[in-house]
Amino acid sequence: MILCDVGNSFLHFYQKGRVWREERNKISRKDKNELIVFISVNENSTQALLRSHSRCFDLAPLCKLYATYQGLGIDRIAACLAVESGVIVDAGSAITIDIMQDKVHLGGIIMPGLGLFSHSFSKISALKMEPNLAVNLESFPQNTRDALSYGTLKPIILTIQEIANNKKLIFTGGDGKFFSRFFADSITDEILVFKGMQKVIEQEFTSKGIKI
Amino acid sequence: MILCDVGNSFLHFYQKGRVWREERNKISRKDKNELIVFISVNENSTQALLRSHSRCFDLAPLCKLYATYQGLGIDRIAACLAVESGVIVDAGSAITIDIMQDKVHLGGIIMPGLGLFSHSFSKISALKMEPNLAVNLESFPQNTRDALSYGTLKPIILTIQEIANNKKLIFTGGDGKFFSRFFADSITDEILVFKGMQKVIEQEFTSKGIKI
Repeated sequence: MILCDVGNSFLHFYQKGRVWREERNKISRKDKNELIVFISVNENSTQALLRSHSRCFDLAPLCKLYATYQGLGIDRIAACLAVESGVIVDAGSAITIDIMQDKVHLGGIIMPGLGLFSHSFSKISALKMEPNLAVNLESFPQNTRDALSYGTLKPIILTIQEIANNKKLIFTGGDGKFFSRFFADSITDEILVFKGMQKVIEQEFTSKGIKI
Repeated sequence: MILCDVGNSFLHFYQKGRVWREERNKISRKDKNELIVFISVNENSTQALLRSHSRCFDLAPLCKLYATYQGLGIDRIAACLAVESGVIVDAGSAITIDIMQDKVHLGGIIMPGLGLFSHSFSKISALKMEPNLAVNLESFPQNTRDALSYGTLKPIILTIQEIANNKKLIFTGGDGKFFSRFFADSITDEILVFKGMQKVIEQEFTSKGIKI
């Protein structure tokens, strides 16, 4: 069995502890006998996956999360299902924060990610510069680049801090590792979505003796 | 005498308590006998101003601020000169925060403004929506629009709060009034830049008996 998290930019795969990603237009041929269990937030990429492989199974309808939040993406649902209590920060092109308590989703936040902050600055004349990700956040910036870098990192970090409020903090996504270093005792887990999917498969199939 | 703050998008004018703005390509004809004292962050707009009026005076070389910050825009310098001690938040397309203490500039920060946050979200597929500026910031969002709105307002507010740290807080700029309502005892002053310019004129000319 291969797990697949179909995103907007890439398809992320997981098999026996190995994680890799593929572009929508360049999906590699997989062993015909393998079942690909997937979740997807992008219909075009889903179609590309279904065309590339005959044995695919959409896990989404079985991913049930106790939540009042309307419109939670299936990837966020899967990540939340992997965490009983804690705050999940998925730091990618956007940064989503989801709060779980005793298997119940309490709410969520969406912020621009590092790249979008930089991109937004490029819209302001004369502020086209890469942020200094090593900027000192404990003193006031003394030049434009540090001012922009501070103004990129500090808002994100303070918001995560505010939401986390001493709860267990789990980072995932491309910039997860980077942000986790600002939070003592935080965890980085790059396969959180797959862990959630595995949990659903275990509950819905394996534990019932159903082999998929 | 007319004061003019030449920005990237507009030229802002001040005369006898009246404030108005004009586009670079549509600068109105002014009384020939009036002197326009200006500061500018945009060379093209400066040229347009100089073409439109014969009696112009650039105040920038006389605007001296005690600061170690490199690259502080002349509009930020002028605003800072109007405040002996306090934190100045200029909330426009970008949000700048400058810290003044006993007439000395201690540092500054640049964040994306409300519009740039929204614009950056529009770069994320399926997140093209206007923020709900009345979103409840005291509870976790329960839908995508509130999640985006919370993720726009909270990072900005927390960063201002962190920098302000109980110092006197002065808001200016187009969104200044909006943000000031999140901070008890804060002040909104839409003519801070002009007040700084007036202070320089007073110090350099009027107090010395020089009429300009």
